[in-house]
Amino acid sequence: MIKTDILIIGAGPTGLFTVFEAGLLKLKTHLIDALPQPGGQCSEIYPKKPIYDIPGFPEILAGDLVNNLMEQIKPFEPGFTLGERAETIEKLEDDTFLVTTNKGTKHNAPVVAIAGGLGSFEPRKPPIPNITDFEDKGVAYIIRDPEVYRDKRVVIAGGGDSALDWSIFLADVASEVTLVHRRNEFRGALDSVERVAELSKLGKVNLITEAEVKELKGEDHLTAVGIKHKTKGDIHFETDYFIPLFGLSPKLGPIGDWGLEIEKNAIKVDNSYDYQTNIPGIYAIGDVNTYKGKLKLILSGFHEAAIMCQSAYQKIHPDKKYVMKYTTVGGVEGFDGTKKEAKKEVVKAIN
Amino acid sequence: MIKTDILIIGAGPTGLFTVFEAGLLKLKTHLIDALPQPGGQCSEIYPKKPIYDIPGFPEILAGDLVNNLMEQIKPFEPGFTLGERAETIEKLEDDTFLVTTNKGTKHNAPVVAIAGGLGSFEPRKPPIPNITDFEDKGVAYIIRDPEVYRDKRVVIAGGGDSALDWSIFLADVASEVTLVHRRNEFRGALDSVERVAELSKLGKVNLITEAEVKELKGEDHLTAVGIKHKTKGDIHFETDYFIPLFGLSPKLGPIGDWGLEIEKNAIKVDNSYDYQTNIPGIYAIGDVNTYKGKLKLILSGFHEAAIMCQSAYQKIHPDKKYVMKYTTVGGVEGFDGTKKEAKKEVVKAIN
Ligand SMILES: Cc1cc2nc3c(=O)[nH]c(=O)nc-3n(C[C@H](O)[C@H](O)[C@H](O)COP(=O)(O)OP(=O)(O)OC[C@H]3O[C@@H](n4cnc5c(N)ncnc54)[C@H](O)[C@@H]3O)c2cc1C
Ligand SMILES: Cc1cc2nc3c(=O)[nH]c(=O)nc-3n(C[C@H](O)[C@H](O)[C@H](O)COP(=O)(O)OP(=O)(O)OC[C@H]3O[C@@H](n4cnc5c(N)ncnc54)[C@H](O)[C@@H]3O)c2cc1C
Repeated sequence: MIKTDILIIGAGPTGLFTVFEAGLLKLKTHLIDALPQPGGQCSEIYPKKPIYDIPGFPEILAGDLVNNLMEQIKPFEPGFTLGERAETIEKLEDDTFLVTTNKGTKHNAPVVAIAGGLGSFEPRKPPIPNITDFEDKGVAYIIRDPEVYRDKRVVIAGGGDSALDWSIFLADVASEVTLVHRRNEFRGALDSVERVAELSKLGKVNLITEAEVKELKGEDHLTAVGIKHKTKGDIHFETDYFIPLFGLSPKLGPIGDWGLEIEKNAIKVDNSYDYQTNIPGIYAIGDVNTYKGKLKLILSGFHEAAIMCQSAYQKIHPDKKYVMKYTTVGGVEGFDGTKKEAKKEVVKAIN
Repeated sequence: MIKTDILIIGAGPTGLFTVFEAGLLKLKTHLIDALPQPGGQCSEIYPKKPIYDIPGFPEILAGDLVNNLMEQIKPFEPGFTLGERAETIEKLEDDTFLVTTNKGTKHNAPVVAIAGGLGSFEPRKPPIPNITDFEDKGVAYIIRDPEVYRDKRVVIAGGGDSALDWSIFLADVASEVTLVHRRNEFRGALDSVERVAELSKLGKVNLITEAEVKELKGEDHLTAVGIKHKTKGDIHFETDYFIPLFGLSPKLGPIGDWGLEIEKNAIKVDNSYDYQTNIPGIYAIGDVNTYKGKLKLILSGFHEAAIMCQSAYQKIHPDKKYVMKYTTVGGVEGFDGTKKEAKKEVVKAIN
């Protein structure tokens, strides 16, 4: 069982910055995210696109913002349970919460901060009847570790950036990469489209367009897919892996059944004070919450996280009074033993 | 008369970022600040010190944060009335506000955003009876334009960073720089203290320690100061300028008399919605406001500014509905004709 002070559900920008604000208060944090990497929407949907309204950054790529946040929180050594979805929550007798993921990992904390954004990112699956039978047996919707595909035959489906970028990447890893797409046209960054065209000419990516994977074949593991081609009809195609990359769509999912007050697919919170939900000890911050005037912007989550951590501190240490110190004045003391601080002024005589 | 959509009082980080959020909504802004430069506390008190809790910046110097904000807001061409204190506010018949500074500059806007921080920065003046008689006649508490002192004799008083840094700077500009300090010890950045010691040895800064300026002499303009030295007694010292740099201390000042609800030297606002004060059309954001759970942090002002601008938009355009667009998706269209936007995706066939 993983124990921590503040259990954060969702490792998007809001969840990540919560680690920092909690750390300043000497509170430990652990994050759960359904995605295999931190960063939420910024990493999953638009890592290479610029954001213009992060205060102090005239322009920053979403992926760089996530990298910066990861560096900023490093001294506070957050724990991560990645690639798992928080499924159930239970209040224990000692007034703490037990959160269990879809893979059975258990987490225990006195405070839960839901920073779940638009919800847990779930893959859009193609409508192939027996597809769930092959999950983890040749079918994957997210590429966690590309090494799995070394020297294997891989069929990727999709026409967007993920399908293009992974085809390019795996061309150097897999023994054979085939990209299947419903249309002739791909939608993505210009250089990705051009690179795939080039690899296709070089014979390093096998391109099958105006076609769809309709059938999965194999016993214990996938051995072939059935492809339906617009003009050529049915094709039997041998492969070790089938990776449909049709995007991930966020779903509030199990959190919707936790007894929290929900409005417009988001969690209602008390914004006049501390972003707590109707269940004491459970807070909701960032895109996942709603209140009058709410702006679903990254900068909102940052402020909500800071305020929420103060309230969590009081809950965890009811007898202590926290006196806020500016980071410039007090520095940042990491749990890893590091200390950042401003250069001290000197008091020095001149003669 | 200066006319704008949102008149911002205070050009600290909160006021500056308000320009950006207003600009996204196509609202014009103008800032008034008592200081000669933008940046508020960050510029005035600790420009060379690092801040560690600006989201996305593991570390940033306060002065750099201000520079970044100035760059970020540039496309929205904010107006500035610097070096003047907003003194009075009046509601006009057309429901707009008229704000007049201590120098008589008039500003008119339908919405006023007070981002006054801890208040208007006012110089700490030394207790010399006739000092006000010499203001702008040889006595200055803030150096607005160092060129004023070219080839003149200058006496600076103080023992902190400002006194040290301006002595260093003016050593190359003025014909004679004298630094008078009550003690032998100076308090400041190590390299500033060392540089002054060096300039003193080279005879480029004339150092008089354990001494205080007690008297000002002259007719239309300052011609000499009277210095009281601990051991040497009274010294008559000829000079063209006397610049006491004993720091600036913020005072809520005239804003305290504007009929706003004040609590703990700050302006009460409705944080459950839009940070509006008890006077409709006047908002208070950043350090200057107070509400339950308020954190006087830079990141708070950023979020408050974003929310406040949405409400201001409704006030200014009661008939329009603003549909928020992410900057990543909609780009940023400056009033100066510039346009920032993400590289477009392409839809392209591969054959
Ligand atoms: C194309 C695009 C452009 C954008 N541009 C801007 C912009 O310019 N400026 C701006 O401010 N904002 C922009 N946004 C919005 C911004 O990305 C979001 O406001 C921000 O990501 C919200 O952060 P968050 O941490 O609250 O949630 P998210 O980033 O959504 O992260 C939430 C995380 O929680 C996880 N999660 C949810 N439920 C569970 C569960 N039960 N178990 C495990 N994990 C779970 C999800 O998998 C996800 O990773 C844009 C969004 C998009 C899609
Ligand atoms: C040494 C120090 C270290 C700090 N460290 C941190 C930190 O690490 N992290 C953090 O988040 N915060 C820190 N802070 C606090 C941070 O600087 C403030 O929260 C921030 O500056 C508030 O911004 P603001 O724009 O609301 O107000 P301010 O920066 O105070 O700016 C307000 C401006 O309004 C002007 N003004 C007020 N009244 C009038 C008037 N009537 N007419 C004209 N002008 C007027 C003032 O002159 C001033 O320039 C620190 C502060 C100090 C002093």
